Amino acid sequence: MESLESQIGFLLEADRLKTVLRQSTLTDRSRRENSAEHSWHLALMALVLAEHAPPGTDLHKAMAMLVLHDLVEIDAGDLFVYAAAPEQARQAAAERAAADRIFSILPLPEGPTLRALWDEFEERKTPEAKFARALDRVQPMLINMVTGGGTWMAHAVPADQVLTRVALIEDGSPSLGRYARDMIARAVKLGILAPAPGAPPR
Amino acid sequence: MESLESQIGFLLEADRLKTVLRQSTLTDRSRRENSAEHSWHLALMALVLAEHAPPGTDLHKAMAMLVLHDLVEIDAGDLFVYAAAPEQARQAAAERAAADRIFSILPLPEGPTLRALWDEFEERKTPEAKFARALDRVQPMLINMVTGGGTWMAHAVPADQVLTRVALIEDGSPSLGRYARDMIARAVKLGILAPAPGAPPR
Repeated sequence: MESLESQIGFLLEADRLKTVLRQSTLTDRSRRENSAEHSWHLALMALVLAEHAPPGTDLHKAMAMLVLHDLVEIDAGDLFVYAAAPEQARQAAAERAAADRIFSILPLPEGPTLRALWDEFEERKTPEAKFARALDRVQPMLINMVTGGGTWMAHAVPADQVLTRVALIEDGSPSLGRYARDMIARAVKLGILAPAPGAPPR
Repeated sequence: MESLESQIGFLLEADRLKTVLRQSTLTDRSRRENSAEHSWHLALMALVLAEHAPPGTDLHKAMAMLVLHDLVEIDAGDLFVYAAAPEQARQAAAERAAADRIFSILPLPEGPTLRALWDEFEERKTPEAKFARALDRVQPMLINMVTGGGTWMAHAVPADQVLTRVALIEDGSPSLGRYARDMIARAVKLGILAPAPGAPPR
């Protein structure tokens, strides 16, 4: 039962992810989204959009990654996807330290196994990690589309900056990559995403 | 792309689960828990407590059930686990109607496939459903233990009523069932769960 006690300790620590706020709001704009419910939304996306994963993707592994991937934010907080490079580097170091602390709450060999899954997600080399990372990028775009531009408008992010992130989506799912490109074009037309500076007027 | 549009429509509708409040609070007691972050917590439990599932359990299926199981609350709301029988019956009917509406947003054959997974969870006959349902019962008990009795104290639920729910946990995981029985005994000793009426004084 000692190993079960450690597992329960980890699960109670994980509860804190419900208090980490992201930049995105809910679709009804009533409040900011937290990282726990965001992780749930991504797991649901992995289930519903399974046919858009690369052939041979182990969907259980992808879903497990999505459930775990933001736990490090309990210590490191959430950083806006368009933050500057020095901030991104500081965040990456803080997240590694957080992973060291949080996964070591678990018993052996489970802690290192789940930590390896988190590393795999971060490295984005396997089909599972590529698909999971693509979903993590698509979800806030979907929310922006139905909230009048959401974080794009709030942070004045222009279309060319959003487009730079589409390669990562295409790498994890060509069909979702196409969908994302199409969303960006629609968002610019709707006036909820600023066109790239110097782009021809719409 | 038409089928992808329906899938995205379903995922945006699912966002509303983040606004459905449960009786439980977060472990820091700062606010009530919502059903989306609760579902994430359960998926994480399925991953971390995998060794406590019945032999041969398909863990991906169990996790998929946990990610989906509360979506019906978008229409039906959350009902407290100790609500009276007539309320439980009304809730069950409302949830079936909600499942009819919500899963039919998805394209064929995906909608019926995921609806069947929801039905399987409700029927609690397969190892996956039994394990998933056990986790759904254990999670609020863990929260009650670290919030000074939580919903047990708030709704004056005595230990014998809590004990009637342990059979369902034992059925999905004998080791978690033992852990739950032990928690109940500890909670009574700590004075954060009322002893059964007529029980010998502690």
